[in-house]
Amino acid sequence: MMNTPLLLSSLIERAERYFPRKLVVSRTHTGIQRIPYAEIAKRTRRLASALEKLGMKKGDRIGSFAWNHHRHLEAYFAVPCRGAVLHMVNIRLSEDHLAYVINHAEDKILLVDVDLVPLIEKIRDRLKTVEHFVIMSDSKTLPETTLYPVSSYEAILNEGDEDYPFLHGLDENAPAAMCYTSATTGYPKGVVYSHRGLYLHSMALGLADNLGVCEQDVAMPVVPMFHVNAWGLPYAAAWFGATQVLPGPSFTPELLAGLIEKEKVTITAGVPTIWIGMLKVLQEKQYDISSLRLIVSGGAASPKGLIRAYEETYKVPFMTGYGMTETSPIVSVASLKSSMKDDTLDQIIETRGKTGLPVPGVEVKVVNEKGEVPWDGKTMGELTVRGPWIADEYYRDNSRHEAFKNGWLFTGDIAVIDEEGYLKITDRTKDLIKSGGEWISSVELENALMSHEAVFEAAVIAVPHPLWQERPLGCVVLKNGYENKVTAQVLKDYLKKQFASWWIPDDIIFVKEIPKTSVGKFLKRALREQLQNHYASAQ
Amino acid sequence: MMNTPLLLSSLIERAERYFPRKLVVSRTHTGIQRIPYAEIAKRTRRLASALEKLGMKKGDRIGSFAWNHHRHLEAYFAVPCRGAVLHMVNIRLSEDHLAYVINHAEDKILLVDVDLVPLIEKIRDRLKTVEHFVIMSDSKTLPETTLYPVSSYEAILNEGDEDYPFLHGLDENAPAAMCYTSATTGYPKGVVYSHRGLYLHSMALGLADNLGVCEQDVAMPVVPMFHVNAWGLPYAAAWFGATQVLPGPSFTPELLAGLIEKEKVTITAGVPTIWIGMLKVLQEKQYDISSLRLIVSGGAASPKGLIRAYEETYKVPFMTGYGMTETSPIVSVASLKSSMKDDTLDQIIETRGKTGLPVPGVEVKVVNEKGEVPWDGKTMGELTVRGPWIADEYYRDNSRHEAFKNGWLFTGDIAVIDEEGYLKITDRTKDLIKSGGEWISSVELENALMSHEAVFEAAVIAVPHPLWQERPLGCVVLKNGYENKVTAQVLKDYLKKQFASWWIPDDIIFVKEIPKTSVGKFLKRALREQLQNHYASAQ
Repeated sequence: MMNTPLLLSSLIERAERYFPRKLVVSRTHTGIQRIPYAEIAKRTRRLASALEKLGMKKGDRIGSFAWNHHRHLEAYFAVPCRGAVLHMVNIRLSEDHLAYVINHAEDKILLVDVDLVPLIEKIRDRLKTVEHFVIMSDSKTLPETTLYPVSSYEAILNEGDEDYPFLHGLDENAPAAMCYTSATTGYPKGVVYSHRGLYLHSMALGLADNLGVCEQDVAMPVVPMFHVNAWGLPYAAAWFGATQVLPGPSFTPELLAGLIEKEKVTITAGVPTIWIGMLKVLQEKQYDISSLRLIVSGGAASPKGLIRAYEETYKVPFMTGYGMTETSPIVSVASLKSSMKDDTLDQIIETRGKTGLPVPGVEVKVVNEKGEVPWDGKTMGELTVRGPWIADEYYRDNSRHEAFKNGWLFTGDIAVIDEEGYLKITDRTKDLIKSGGEWISSVELENALMSHEAVFEAAVIAVPHPLWQERPLGCVVLKNGYENKVTAQVLKDYLKKQFASWWIPDDIIFVKEIPKTSVGKFLKRALREQLQNHYASAQ
Repeated sequence: MMNTPLLLSSLIERAERYFPRKLVVSRTHTGIQRIPYAEIAKRTRRLASALEKLGMKKGDRIGSFAWNHHRHLEAYFAVPCRGAVLHMVNIRLSEDHLAYVINHAEDKILLVDVDLVPLIEKIRDRLKTVEHFVIMSDSKTLPETTLYPVSSYEAILNEGDEDYPFLHGLDENAPAAMCYTSATTGYPKGVVYSHRGLYLHSMALGLADNLGVCEQDVAMPVVPMFHVNAWGLPYAAAWFGATQVLPGPSFTPELLAGLIEKEKVTITAGVPTIWIGMLKVLQEKQYDISSLRLIVSGGAASPKGLIRAYEETYKVPFMTGYGMTETSPIVSVASLKSSMKDDTLDQIIETRGKTGLPVPGVEVKVVNEKGEVPWDGKTMGELTVRGPWIADEYYRDNSRHEAFKNGWLFTGDIAVIDEEGYLKITDRTKDLIKSGGEWISSVELENALMSHEAVFEAAVIAVPHPLWQERPLGCVVLKNGYENKVTAQVLKDYLKKQFASWWIPDDIIFVKEIPKTSVGKFLKRALREQLQNHYASAQ
């Protein structure tokens, strides 16, 4: 067989050749633009040539600091198709981490959205490798900025070559893109995506048993393009000639619902928070979202009530997907097996809320100290993953990281597998409670506590225990009006109805708030440190 | 990214792990068996270990001489998953060619269907490399045969190890399978398929813009498993957990229609002759084929009347696909673009009958002496193909074959491309008529002649011409009752309504029959030789 390399250039070139009139609907800072792939491809070629004039060379990292819009899409292809590496910088990082990742990746050129320029200006003096800034505004005129040297994206495109060729002789294992994990401890760690990995991941997205992206689709990635390749949708949508709708900067739930209605979006993907917000909007105002054939929700577990609302009220399939920065990201999706076609709505919601079946192309194993766990839906183990779009190292990380062992990625997520092979994440390894040789899921206890009418928020943490090694401790924020009206015993009794007795926290304390990370996740580490001696004198 | 090799073992292992109860419905010589993938996988592992006991080693060629059934499917995985190469021998080859391909491939073991044993017995003495025959009957008892040494498939399986491991450390470029082209001239030429090529081809089959094979499907490959991997369906169906229906030996159109009804087949694939035969059956007897979501027709052009019958009468999408032994085989499918969703039935039939759009993963160019032809639906050129599942050589062919040039496969097919990028094959290069520097399609003239009420069959060939280099000559077989009632001039006048005057054959002669190959294709080479001086004295 021909040793044709698997390169990202094949993707954009197919859109250019076979779907020149299909549209990229791009919301930018000044409004919505409708740009056919023929034009996107020409602009991508112009960008590639313009970046090389600014000094981009094969292997260089080029940073992007931008929302979801057509210019970011152009960069998604222009940079890797000339052999350089697009570093998608997460705009939500702290200033410290921002400076760190740009310096660590050694970004040579930084493409910055016009409204994000102030964030970069603040850290400009700390950036050691950036030689040029390009501002992605709609105008050829530069906005006022202290960044220097600086160009306007449209101005450099204007000087670019719309026939500029892509490199077809690249090694398929060459790096194409990179992202950093949003670390909860230490500095973010870099993950480099190869052409081969992204090509295979994109093809997998087209499988009916994955997201089934196809030419008939109008795909709207709500998940940011600065976060794990927007789950691969921009690549796949271009390859298969799907219309894509890029919702731009600082969108609201109203805006998303409006785009779905107006552009007849068929598939969209984002974190549960987005779909919770949109649901509220749909309940308040009439939007026609019947064009949707699939909502994909990932990044965190989707509450059952949320899935039910979309499946039951709006008749829109709502499917959980799972992945992480290290996995490009799609590992599993909660697609339904054909044997489930007569399932009740309750059963469907149960399945849709699971972490899902591994998609073709990746292998998973859930392992504990005894080896692979049985498929009983109960026995917990760490989720490990293997496949051609799974990372095997962190970028320039001298210590061989513990996540990479024996050819598998250890995800740090604790999961169970049911008898059909569906995964369900129950916890993070570091949040798991190891009590007397058995594992207790903090997440399941938290979810149960939060279903109590008096509870606003709850975190359950592992606290060292002289007898059991660790025991769970509940930290609960009560809703307004319930303060001093509910005791720890009431909540413990409530939990006893659902869990084995040894799962019940020995104590539940009431706190004013749960400390959180910058993206709103519980910062349990802080609680653990604060409460580490809580059971010190227990027997 | 991990350098996980792309291997066929991933496919069967996914079926084994996630779809153990999904069925392979296998029609054998004695009846229909329904075997779950869990059992298929165990039997595949048994077969792998049993073949190694018989001497199979990494890199060895193992021949199969069999219809579509579960044992052939087991061989599809058992042989390559242990690093050997499954040579699917075409049961329709002549004795000479049979002996040639088995010797040329150096098959070490030959798996033979029970009803095909007599064909092998006839050539046994000419086989130089086969060390063992395995007869694929339903019984552990051997049928009477002169083949020696010989074993029963079920008997050796019985001694095999159902936990035998597949080799996960193979090079993805290692050979996995091979087929020989059914040559019209000379000896057949071998094409070797790699794990990587078949893996990627299988993944592509799952794309909605290709065949969209998925877990919900009940897939019935009618195209033989001894012919270009049964177009890849057995691999893809296993990977995605689709039920597969294998119609076994010497099936009839009635049998196929019955299987579709009974097993609720959703997708099936075969040559036009099959669908013509089934149509006749459907018109005579009631079968419910409404479960079908797609009929794929390839190997030859599908007549429009055939497409219309399925699309209009039975509401079953009927799609042309294109490929060849050298291309694994899928190159293009006549899927409809979303812009065609309001097309009339006539327009849909027109599109469905084209050779189609290249599927994601392969590139095509149609070239003539001026380079790529314009997308005007008229300008003819040779179809060239490139991609990771396209052959770049023939097996043990010392002469660098003319089909492989500059990294492209020259298919020998003449095609046009319309303004949407759809290919349409118009001829074979060697049947094309080059007249005064312009190209004339013999196939289009033949189709036009055969649409005349008096014409039973017609072949149009290129005959050397002193002035124009070549000119078309029509050879027509008239229907019973029309002999001596229709003149060459009448037919030429008939053609003039549809073609430019310089396309019209200078002469049309009436013959008793058109010589044909063993598979019923016109043997134009014989006509060309016989009539090469027909225009010798023309001016």
